[in-house]
Amino acid sequence: MKRREFIKKTGFGLAAVAGAAVVPSVVRSQDPGLPAVKWRLVSSFPKSLEVVYTGAEALAKRIDELTSGKFQIQVFAAGEIKPSNGVLDAVQKNTVECGHTCSYYFHNQNKAFSLDTAIPFGLSARQMNAWYYYGGGLALSREFFARHGIVNFSGGNTGTQMGGWFRKEIRGLKDIKGLKIRIPGFGAEIFSSLGATVQRDLAIADIYPAFDQGAIDAVELVGPYDDEKQSLYKVARFYYYPGWWEPAGRITFYVNKGEWDQLPKPYQAAFEVAAAEVDVRILANYDAWNPPAIQRLVQKGTQLRQFPDDVMHAAYKTAQKIYTAESAANPDFKKIYDSMRAFQQVSDIWTGMAENTMANFMQAQSIAGK
Amino acid sequence: MKRREFIKKTGFGLAAVAGAAVVPSVVRSQDPGLPAVKWRLVSSFPKSLEVVYTGAEALAKRIDELTSGKFQIQVFAAGEIKPSNGVLDAVQKNTVECGHTCSYYFHNQNKAFSLDTAIPFGLSARQMNAWYYYGGGLALSREFFARHGIVNFSGGNTGTQMGGWFRKEIRGLKDIKGLKIRIPGFGAEIFSSLGATVQRDLAIADIYPAFDQGAIDAVELVGPYDDEKQSLYKVARFYYYPGWWEPAGRITFYVNKGEWDQLPKPYQAAFEVAAAEVDVRILANYDAWNPPAIQRLVQKGTQLRQFPDDVMHAAYKTAQKIYTAESAANPDFKKIYDSMRAFQQVSDIWTGMAENTMANFMQAQSIAGK
Repeated sequence: MKRREFIKKTGFGLAAVAGAAVVPSVVRSQDPGLPAVKWRLVSSFPKSLEVVYTGAEALAKRIDELTSGKFQIQVFAAGEIKPSNGVLDAVQKNTVECGHTCSYYFHNQNKAFSLDTAIPFGLSARQMNAWYYYGGGLALSREFFARHGIVNFSGGNTGTQMGGWFRKEIRGLKDIKGLKIRIPGFGAEIFSSLGATVQRDLAIADIYPAFDQGAIDAVELVGPYDDEKQSLYKVARFYYYPGWWEPAGRITFYVNKGEWDQLPKPYQAAFEVAAAEVDVRILANYDAWNPPAIQRLVQKGTQLRQFPDDVMHAAYKTAQKIYTAESAANPDFKKIYDSMRAFQQVSDIWTGMAENTMANFMQAQSIAGK
Repeated sequence: MKRREFIKKTGFGLAAVAGAAVVPSVVRSQDPGLPAVKWRLVSSFPKSLEVVYTGAEALAKRIDELTSGKFQIQVFAAGEIKPSNGVLDAVQKNTVECGHTCSYYFHNQNKAFSLDTAIPFGLSARQMNAWYYYGGGLALSREFFARHGIVNFSGGNTGTQMGGWFRKEIRGLKDIKGLKIRIPGFGAEIFSSLGATVQRDLAIADIYPAFDQGAIDAVELVGPYDDEKQSLYKVARFYYYPGWWEPAGRITFYVNKGEWDQLPKPYQAAFEVAAAEVDVRILANYDAWNPPAIQRLVQKGTQLRQFPDDVMHAAYKTAQKIYTAESAANPDFKKIYDSMRAFQQVSDIWTGMAENTMANFMQAQSIAGK
């Protein structure tokens, strides 16, 4: 946005400059009487996915508080002005100034987008932030997004997702063959390679009817809290874990780069820090609400199942082949993936040591009722 | 601080009110021309524990950016104006307005303080925030701290710590008997109950000499990155995990309650949101720097060992007895512990499902070099 457009849009021209001259003298010169700014944010999430949807509202509220109401962001849920998968386009074209989405929704445009959200057998939520902030991930990611006219901010995580709902038990790799499953992105490619028939692009609203009517045999969505609301347990009894295609699920704030570059520094700081807060809170929210949800589901008759070893190992092997092929074909993917993969190999050994040994022990005590 | 003192301290009285009247009209009335505020923060951490120490500097920098330099916080490392364990007292008495510390340093004053940082077999880093923000933990914690004249904010986490450095291998419970170990808090009580001789109050600077000269047989500190800097690997070969007495290690910002209550709302928002950002970043920092540190330690000859099952189970059982006794004697402890424990029992089962199954699988692939 040009300076003139900016002034026009915000209705804040000379008055701001005049105001700056009369602020009390103890206020430092770097406070130039900040302008009123109004942005619109489109979320990829419907209000029914409340944990992620409300993240954008929390961002807007915090920025309002930080700027004494001068920087306002109006939040629109999926479908209100843009469809769920329209966020990238809307922010790129500056139809809206910012958005809240999962980058892997844009997998078909460039598979490197998936690296920002989750890839099968990729980083966990904690590892994603470690790699992002202290392992070079953010810089690589920003470079990629800048070429799409976007500045990106980590804005939430689901943690490791569940593997989804299956009408029939999966006792081994042979049960994957012929399975009709709703799954997007790299997960779809792996299931397809293992012999399943994948349904990639089923909108959330269409999942339940398709599942209920038997058009699909299996559905993956998010985790217990979100899945329970979609009533999938009414159709299928078996709920599988882990969701190896989503060891984490980052949610990302997108800001139009032109808008960002013209935003006053204190507002940039407000956006960035508010996004970090949303990042902690969404993960904490899922971590708090998923455990009672899984209990309720079990009480309703859901049977929990772990994916068999041969499925895990075949999927892992297939994933590595897909990444090798994609790296050869797509330099955007290769550059980010190589960094992520190197980070992960060192990190997984450490994570498995103190953190997991402890968590495994504690799970055993809980199950034993000790 | 009284209104008069506040004005005196900040040098900002009527001018602020006058300033408010002449700010541009589009600026909402809740922006009253904010005053300049200068605070001091004492950290419990020396600059050598750089990950945690720099967290406070990051907070100050972010608040400066958010307030266009009007709200300034000067950071002092441990020992510069207050000793490491002097933070609670200094903030309570308003010698300084705020601090950055681990609440379990004040375990001997009231064992409920430990619930804010870590207790043996307690919550993980992610569980702590889930319980804090969406499980009632923050409200209970704030109530406890308010009675000490403090407002508390989560401000970092180490993740599950290591179990520390041992000169001799621990092959079972029998090897704990007679062991001279440096360990504070509830961990000390458990080791003592298992027959060890505990050294609770050894300052960080005194650990290496005592260890090197054989006055102690074992030392627990933090994790690979911090421990490596203290050169403990030069004295002992065996590095144990998990640090079951610290399944997480929260670092907390303390603010004097009187100061907080008088702080303008946008500055309160700035402090709170900056603390949340530090919270994410410190954990991410440890998660990024610990993995290569453990690799370096192994290259230097450190041998990794897991605590034997009988030690884990005996320690767990002892911990539960200690919590039952403390709950009976200390209503502050009981009130918070009951909430935390109920949360944990439901959470541990879920965490062990998708998240840990995935992490365990990934660790196995890394170890197998796949």
